[in-house]
Amino acid sequence: MTQVYDKVALIGLGLIAGSMAHAIRDGGLAGRVTGYARSQATRDTAREIGLCEVCDTAALAVAGADLVVLAVPVGAMAEVMAEIAPHLAPGATITDVGSVKQSVIDAVAPCLPAGVHFIPGHPLAGTEHSGPRAGFASLFRNRWWLLTPLPDTDPEALARLDRLITAMGAKTDRMDAPHHDLVLAVTSHAPHLIAYTMVGVADHLRRVSGEEVIQYSAAGFRDFTRIAASDPTMWRDVFLHNKEATLDILGRFTEELFVLQRAIRMGDGQQLHDYFTRTRAIRRGIIEAGQDTEAPDFGRTPGARPAG
Amino acid sequence: MTQVYDKVALIGLGLIAGSMAHAIRDGGLAGRVTGYARSQATRDTAREIGLCEVCDTAALAVAGADLVVLAVPVGAMAEVMAEIAPHLAPGATITDVGSVKQSVIDAVAPCLPAGVHFIPGHPLAGTEHSGPRAGFASLFRNRWWLLTPLPDTDPEALARLDRLITAMGAKTDRMDAPHHDLVLAVTSHAPHLIAYTMVGVADHLRRVSGEEVIQYSAAGFRDFTRIAASDPTMWRDVFLHNKEATLDILGRFTEELFVLQRAIRMGDGQQLHDYFTRTRAIRRGIIEAGQDTEAPDFGRTPGARPAG
Repeated sequence: MTQVYDKVALIGLGLIAGSMAHAIRDGGLAGRVTGYARSQATRDTAREIGLCEVCDTAALAVAGADLVVLAVPVGAMAEVMAEIAPHLAPGATITDVGSVKQSVIDAVAPCLPAGVHFIPGHPLAGTEHSGPRAGFASLFRNRWWLLTPLPDTDPEALARLDRLITAMGAKTDRMDAPHHDLVLAVTSHAPHLIAYTMVGVADHLRRVSGEEVIQYSAAGFRDFTRIAASDPTMWRDVFLHNKEATLDILGRFTEELFVLQRAIRMGDGQQLHDYFTRTRAIRRGIIEAGQDTEAPDFGRTPGARPAG
Repeated sequence: MTQVYDKVALIGLGLIAGSMAHAIRDGGLAGRVTGYARSQATRDTAREIGLCEVCDTAALAVAGADLVVLAVPVGAMAEVMAEIAPHLAPGATITDVGSVKQSVIDAVAPCLPAGVHFIPGHPLAGTEHSGPRAGFASLFRNRWWLLTPLPDTDPEALARLDRLITAMGAKTDRMDAPHHDLVLAVTSHAPHLIAYTMVGVADHLRRVSGEEVIQYSAAGFRDFTRIAASDPTMWRDVFLHNKEATLDILGRFTEELFVLQRAIRMGDGQQLHDYFTRTRAIRRGIIEAGQDTEAPDFGRTPGARPAG
């Protein structure tokens, strides 16, 4: 691997930044990696595990960096950007890893100093764990990392960021921000809210039926709880900042659910069977697109942990 | 391992029966395993892979069997039971593996010959694959297998069935049928319908946004598609046969979803954050109950396949 940047500054030290620190170090992709997190406890943990050069202010972390990565919840982007803007090196690139793109552009672009390149991004990778200890180098391997460059983005700065991302094992694609936010509302934001909701319903019932809901979760509900265990702050911000698209998809979802509920109530087995046959075909598409494994029991081998 | 039954007859040769055939043979748990499936193609496949002694009629399969396993969709139980009842050996045990218990009891009990023991059961194990090729011996390992014995169930017959299930690697628990059906509506039936619905919504949108929904499915939606790829016939029957409990849970779900949708619309971040924090705690309970792995990236290691 070749070094892509001299100094990478990670603002926010959670799962994504932590995984980037590991991947950049393992690949020798930067001369130095600095990091900053608002919470003292997070900085202490990051220092303890030797994640990167941890700085006590964001200004120190970004000083002289040719790449700055904003890896904080979407709702914190504006504040962080205001804090670091005066300290950015001329010619530096800023990117972010937020799950919503238009609102991050709205928050970051107004503070952007002249001569600094802003290239919004979103790695489609994660686990239900958060914090600096959750990161691992292989998180991005074979995952998509979407970039939503602005019309005036410098092609060289874009190509360089692309090289870093690809070197960490991810595949990049480009789209405009509003389209990104709609696609992600379907593939990620609405499913997360639905999973949170179903787990909440089960929680009410758990008080009725003791621990059985947890004990017998293997048959479907387990997958929901994994999704619904994701970081609460990050997801609060996602929903508030991708409000229109999320509410649109949830509206379609509720309509559709009512149609199926009615089919159950009326005993219309044919309608249910036809519907379930169609959804099964979509799964085949995902396997063929290489976005999941076909292994039985969902490919889970208890105890297995990706290297990193 | 010790042989538990002389002859086990599997009626229906899908994922569950196929996995039982493998597990029983690997463990030496029965002298003979016979099988029957209504479809000629399924019987041919089962013969081709040497799953068990495949018979061309259900009557032949059950003749002289001391254990008969009904492993057909819930809606087919009554018909199968009427077909085999005259051929059951005196003293034999019949069990089933249906995901709904009260309606199976209503279908099977009236046809039960005197001296035959009926012990309804439900293994909480499965993958999104179906058919005789989908089975593997380790499917039941460390999974729950719920039994819903009737008040007059013979304790010796029950203990013997329990021995077979435990020897296949599962853990057994007992509850009454209506309670089973409510617990499973929460942990399995409602989540499946919700996943089917969300995948259906995405399918409509896919026609708008090309293949992107599939391509970028890794961030939540992927888990829904896996659930929604389950066997359409099996699930149609589950919903039609556990109608009341499923509709009750879906009603609660919709109420709860509307509360969260409203919080998004009104920008109530605190309510969302509190909710997501509660659901995260439930996930911890499931990890502690040993029903899932804590490995990052959901424990998925592409290409890994459980032994068997």
